[in-house]
Amino acid sequence: MNSFHFPLSRSDAEALDARDPLAHCRAAFALPEGITYLVGHSLGPATQGALLALQRAADEGWVRDRVSAWNSANWIGLAEQVGAKLARLIGAGERDVLVCDSVSVNLFKLAASAQPLAAARRLVVEEDEFPTDQYILEGLSSMTGVELVRAEAGKGVAELKGGVLVKSLVNYRTGEVADVAGDEAAAQAGGGLIVWDLSHATGVLDVRLKAWGARLAAGCTYKYLNGGPGAPAFVFVDEALAPELASPLPGWMGHAAAFDFKSTYQPKEGVARFAAGTPPILSLAALDGALEIFHGLNMADVQEKARRLSQMCLMLAEKAELKISCPLEADRRGGHISVRHCEGYAVVRAMADWGIEADFRAPDTIRFGLSPLFLSYAEVWDAMQELTEILETRSWDKACYREKAVVT
Amino acid sequence: MNSFHFPLSRSDAEALDARDPLAHCRAAFALPEGITYLVGHSLGPATQGALLALQRAADEGWVRDRVSAWNSANWIGLAEQVGAKLARLIGAGERDVLVCDSVSVNLFKLAASAQPLAAARRLVVEEDEFPTDQYILEGLSSMTGVELVRAEAGKGVAELKGGVLVKSLVNYRTGEVADVAGDEAAAQAGGGLIVWDLSHATGVLDVRLKAWGARLAAGCTYKYLNGGPGAPAFVFVDEALAPELASPLPGWMGHAAAFDFKSTYQPKEGVARFAAGTPPILSLAALDGALEIFHGLNMADVQEKARRLSQMCLMLAEKAELKISCPLEADRRGGHISVRHCEGYAVVRAMADWGIEADFRAPDTIRFGLSPLFLSYAEVWDAMQELTEILETRSWDKACYREKAVVT
Repeated sequence: MNSFHFPLSRSDAEALDARDPLAHCRAAFALPEGITYLVGHSLGPATQGALLALQRAADEGWVRDRVSAWNSANWIGLAEQVGAKLARLIGAGERDVLVCDSVSVNLFKLAASAQPLAAARRLVVEEDEFPTDQYILEGLSSMTGVELVRAEAGKGVAELKGGVLVKSLVNYRTGEVADVAGDEAAAQAGGGLIVWDLSHATGVLDVRLKAWGARLAAGCTYKYLNGGPGAPAFVFVDEALAPELASPLPGWMGHAAAFDFKSTYQPKEGVARFAAGTPPILSLAALDGALEIFHGLNMADVQEKARRLSQMCLMLAEKAELKISCPLEADRRGGHISVRHCEGYAVVRAMADWGIEADFRAPDTIRFGLSPLFLSYAEVWDAMQELTEILETRSWDKACYREKAVVT
Repeated sequence: MNSFHFPLSRSDAEALDARDPLAHCRAAFALPEGITYLVGHSLGPATQGALLALQRAADEGWVRDRVSAWNSANWIGLAEQVGAKLARLIGAGERDVLVCDSVSVNLFKLAASAQPLAAARRLVVEEDEFPTDQYILEGLSSMTGVELVRAEAGKGVAELKGGVLVKSLVNYRTGEVADVAGDEAAAQAGGGLIVWDLSHATGVLDVRLKAWGARLAAGCTYKYLNGGPGAPAFVFVDEALAPELASPLPGWMGHAAAFDFKSTYQPKEGVARFAAGTPPILSLAALDGALEIFHGLNMADVQEKARRLSQMCLMLAEKAELKISCPLEADRRGGHISVRHCEGYAVVRAMADWGIEADFRAPDTIRFGLSPLFLSYAEVWDAMQELTEILETRSWDKACYREKAVVT
């Protein structure tokens, strides 16, 4: 990343803002003035498009058309329609993504349906994986008797041995990015399958599932996609693999003819077979509206800005002598950076008093989400200066966080 | 039901309206004038409370407080809070109900976690059960190798033999009500468990789960509870049984300390262990607001009005010489009645032209939902007179529907 340009000064930051291809997006967000929101990796803020779509679903759907809105507002096809919009953002075919349920439930569906196709009866998860991914595999292992192996961080593929691995593209804590193409090649060579958890990647990285050879993925939509609190999650299945997969949760919405009310199950074609029950339409409508802002955006631009923002942020965190707990190279990270401070919770509260919102993960991790659609370089620059002042002017126990790192 | 009084004339209907303890509820619904909405058993209409709660969740939660709303608006506890409100309506302890996921997913969780406690490795479902209940048991059977038995309609308990039965309290097609107390006693005597599907019962019948000895139930909230399209479903677990149940979908929201991000799973106490992923907050907030209308209502009054309405409706359907396909006795039915007409779809469309909304289920079933909170006796009387006129004045093939029945 030596040729990688990120702002080294506030005037650099201003210059990048002036030619930012995403600068127009900020106006679409319902974010109050005076707030620097560095928690878009946890809950993306509302956009006008999402709020409008939500209101329409309530007023024109539920109130005006009532049950007829299943047809008039295409609620019946909404999960697939929103999936198609989302597909472009992760490099998937537009018929290969379905919005449904939660990440937890979707990981279960994918891992359970992939297991019979794997060379080995073996489930693998890395020990620093997001907890729900670990728990869900525990549940699946208990139900089916298939062995669950907890691999060391980064060793999931090495331990795969023809089984099914659930792995995050971006680690929730450190922000580290996995090598999807490399991991897929290794997994497939051994008859194994990987279910990618894209929760911290979608909407901020230039994810290219098909090009990378990924075949199964799930992810959440309430982070960088700004779909709303607890917005429904998604499933991606490669079209060639889909016909071989039987959902363990074959609800009526995944039936090829749901309204024929047949006793025998006939799954829909493709990824749509992973629908289970009736989707939460109001939440789904908000997500539909939230995705409008991505229309016409180049995801490479989005990723580039996230990397510049995060690299600048990391440089300033280093200057503030914070312990860095994420990769230092921009192309090995997702959209957030992580630092450590033993009084991290108090630091985050102090920042909030200045209108800078960040998050804290026990025991000592502070995360800054660098959402490229609503943050400016200058704004993040100023936030980090404020953090530096907070650290300098209060009587923190400096021994607990200062550490040298080299950001390039 | 010989002593049962239901309106036999329009003036009877008016008289009952005049002393209806639920009459005040109508004003809380966002229903247009001139519409008689007989589809509340499919999608309950919006209430002002639900719309307001939805708007608050968006404006005061997502927009104003952003990620902090997980605490400030108690989003983190919302699934349990709404569960507690719902519990009173189904005769459950207020800590024994959790709102989460869809009915399909919840039936899976309950049946899967109940199976290890049952005397026999056997899953049972009746062949006229709502399709998703059948499909979900198929999926569970395929995953676990536990035999699935399809019993004849009404023979589920007889075929249980110590296994796990999934059974609707109110049949979706015929509206017939099961005998929960009797079925539970028979099931428990043989070491079996029943997972009750309350979808067509909750909010319209005086359901008394604990008094009846029910131990496991799931149900939907978008019918008579008016929670909104695809509103999240619920799970009920008897508190004595809960500690023995391990959810097959142990997502992070069911963890006793979700934000400690531990690798090992420690379920929450009680029914809350059935939470999986992050709930769809916007949809959940609407449901929360929708339940306000039930505050202070006596569910016995609600059930009584539903029965009077449906009995009156059935009498008028009989006069119109429609084939009746639901029980004729009011106390054997839920909140809807079913009739058959080989041109049923066209009949429903013709009624819609007169502002009367009913629904059609292939091949020939017309259903009228008699939601007691927003329908008046006189309004339903008039709707059925309109239907009679439609049937009399158009050239329907009368041979295809006329049949004698005796409504008492």
